[in-house]
Amino acid sequence: MVRVKLISWSNGGVEDPRRLVVLAVKISAGSLRRRSASYYLNEYSEEGVSKWLKDAVKFPSVLEHIVFTFLIEGISRVTSHQLVRHRIASYTQESQRYSVISKKYVVPKSIMLKGYEDRFHNIVEESFKLYVEMVESGVPPEDARYVLPQAVTTNILMTVNLRELLHIACLRLSSKAQWEIRELVNLMIDEVVRVIPEIRDLIELFCREVS
Amino acid sequence: MVRVKLISWSNGGVEDPRRLVVLAVKISAGSLRRRSASYYLNEYSEEGVSKWLKDAVKFPSVLEHIVFTFLIEGISRVTSHQLVRHRIASYTQESQRYSVISKKYVVPKSIMLKGYEDRFHNIVEESFKLYVEMVESGVPPEDARYVLPQAVTTNILMTVNLRELLHIACLRLSSKAQWEIRELVNLMIDEVVRVIPEIRDLIELFCREVS
Amino acid sequence: MVRVKLISWSNGGVEDPRRLVVLAVKISAGSLRRRSASYYLNEYSEEGVSKWLKDAVKFPSVLEHIVFTFLIEGISRVTSHQLVRHRIASYTQESQRYSVISKKYVVPKSIMLKGYEDRFHNIVEESFKLYVEMVESGVPPEDARYVLPQAVTTNILMTVNLRELLHIACLRLSSKAQWEIRELVNLMIDEVVRVIPEIRDLIELFCREVS
Amino acid sequence: MVRVKLISWSNGGVEDPRRLVVLAVKISAGSLRRRSASYYLNEYSEEGVSKWLKDAVKFPSVLEHIVFTFLIEGISRVTSHQLVRHRIASYTQESQRYSVISKKYVVPKSIMLKGYEDRFHNIVEESFKLYVEMVESGVPPEDARYVLPQAVTTNILMTVNLRELLHIACLRLSSKAQWEIRELVNLMIDEVVRVIPEIRDLIELFCREVS
Repeated sequence: MVRVKLISWSNGGVEDPRRLVVLAVKISAGSLRRRSASYYLNEYSEEGVSKWLKDAVKFPSVLEHIVFTFLIEGISRVTSHQLVRHRIASYTQESQRYSVISKKYVVPKSIMLKGYEDRFHNIVEESFKLYVEMVESGVPPEDARYVLPQAVTTNILMTVNLRELLHIACLRLSSKAQWEIRELVNLMIDEVVRVIPEIRDLIELFCREVS
Repeated sequence: MVRVKLISWSNGGVEDPRRLVVLAVKISAGSLRRRSASYYLNEYSEEGVSKWLKDAVKFPSVLEHIVFTFLIEGISRVTSHQLVRHRIASYTQESQRYSVISKKYVVPKSIMLKGYEDRFHNIVEESFKLYVEMVESGVPPEDARYVLPQAVTTNILMTVNLRELLHIACLRLSSKAQWEIRELVNLMIDEVVRVIPEIRDLIELFCREVS
Repeated sequence: MVRVKLISWSNGGVEDPRRLVVLAVKISAGSLRRRSASYYLNEYSEEGVSKWLKDAVKFPSVLEHIVFTFLIEGISRVTSHQLVRHRIASYTQESQRYSVISKKYVVPKSIMLKGYEDRFHNIVEESFKLYVEMVESGVPPEDARYVLPQAVTTNILMTVNLRELLHIACLRLSSKAQWEIRELVNLMIDEVVRVIPEIRDLIELFCREVS
Repeated sequence: MVRVKLISWSNGGVEDPRRLVVLAVKISAGSLRRRSASYYLNEYSEEGVSKWLKDAVKFPSVLEHIVFTFLIEGISRVTSHQLVRHRIASYTQESQRYSVISKKYVVPKSIMLKGYEDRFHNIVEESFKLYVEMVESGVPPEDARYVLPQAVTTNILMTVNLRELLHIACLRLSSKAQWEIRELVNLMIDEVVRVIPEIRDLIELFCREVS
């Protein structure tokens, strides 16, 4: 149901944003007085890059220089309400105020397993039927939506830096998190792999550091 | 429906938090080298306090030293989702994950005016009936809630500083905002009056400054 | 040298801001549907309050509802530059742009121990002499200050919530922090004791949680 | 003196990060239900892109999806202290704690114009001489630096989104700002031109909106 696409990220000098972290570490240590920035962005060894990235989870502010933008489609409003609680990120969410929402919604597996799928569908269908009728007879969409179930889906554009993404991953990939947001964050991390191949290692190191 | 109570705020030396803004202004101007902090917190003229408060909307960071905590009860999840998008504030919201939600919900006036109240109630009643049944048969509340309408109410404890509160007021008291959040913010401002009598003037000045 | 005074904080219903944390925990758990807020603010047992406070370091967002305002006097610009790097707080700092700075400065002990005190004083005296002369002959204070040493003192009004204060304490009370900011944060915590007697315990628990 | 280089930014589908703003606007309006994201990222008309970018200053949260990373070299600690007060950005600054600082510093023009250049140089030279001597005899660099003037330069890696950059530009390009930070922000904006040609127009629109 949910679809996630990494559509944008910080691209450093050689298209490898991980080198921004190395540059940051080296600036902090005063190394820019000896070597140019382009050395760290282009020539510094690949092993060094990966090593610094992993070390950086201990002084994570340098990880903030890598930023990702994700297009997230088809999550429920239950989950979007959880997601936007992470305040150190930017969100643009599909509005239910002015546009009429299409009949798309999420059905939790536990509801199907217990045999409630048909009744769930029936009620959601009824809700959408009334929603559309109300809108057509002049109730503003922003009011008509009160009848819609929390299962209805939404789309979000989310921009977040690597430090905060690791923080979110620790909280939301945990078994304590609800399945839908866990699934969402997992898909986000899958996308990040093509930019930061060691992302799963970073998450493990970061979570160990903070708990 | 919605109830708002200001249950806590910054209390300066003489129980008048507005004097924190005066103190901040005077620290910035270096006046602490001539007068003690307690002068500004206790003896500075009431006229001076009110004047500086109004002037401060032009360099609003000093307004951040006054902080409020509101108990907000009975707003819909539609509105809580809007509220928590203001990132420079702290929220604790009633969880729908572990506790079973009681049958309380908001019905927009426009729905009543167009004669849809009965059908609205019926669907909401059905949703709650299925919700309770599912929970009783072992569906986790966090999943069962997907069937609940966005109209269901929630409770929030919100802590926010004066600068951000003015920002929120400009956006949410505007005629472009939806009625429920406008009502909510109006009630918040009503509560603030007993701490900052000139709050409505400050909002007017602040909104003029930023638009 | 440095002086710290807690001049304001969140005051809950019975003047005990720790109860705001209990209220937040109970709202999150849905308990407000059974008990009123005033029960948690006034009648809930003292043991319960202290227990929840300590438990809350594991889900620290509830700690954000307690906010402190500190008057900090006499720290060096070295240390103020470190302090304001903590972004989740509000600062009003004495400006060096428009007012003329008085000759107050911090001398690190290590400089005295190595016998450089006199030469340090001499250079600082010279700097201030030139600073005053330049200002008197029409150089703007904001430019004249470039000659002043980083040792010059400044005053700051700082507002910060308990969660961020614990985070700052973990970083800045550590042996890795520089002595001046460690001293500063220690004084801040000393002041907090009269509002939150168990603050030192909370710091210990919080630091264990995050490292 | 100061050098600024834009070394990284968000790169959207077709290398034009401005299209992230269009995508955000369209997601908010529900248009993703009719057109795919790639349409807005690749095919949407150039005129439309520029129009939406300018319109977006009125609902500026969508501008947060474009993020820039600047390498800033050679600003004084006077100016770095001002810069890092903008809290909605990420900074990695050269540390004076562990590395020995080289003798580079900024001399304000007003000091030269009033004929104080030689005395300024002399005092700064003396400061550095004592600084080096103290470090060599075992005073930690973090303490020895107290004698250094605020004129000493520093290097910073700064990551900031377009919304906050516009906010900073309004404040710091104003005639009320000090010359050095004005110069710095001007150089930052010059760099942004190659990614967002209409950046100067956006600043003008944004500043008009907020004052």
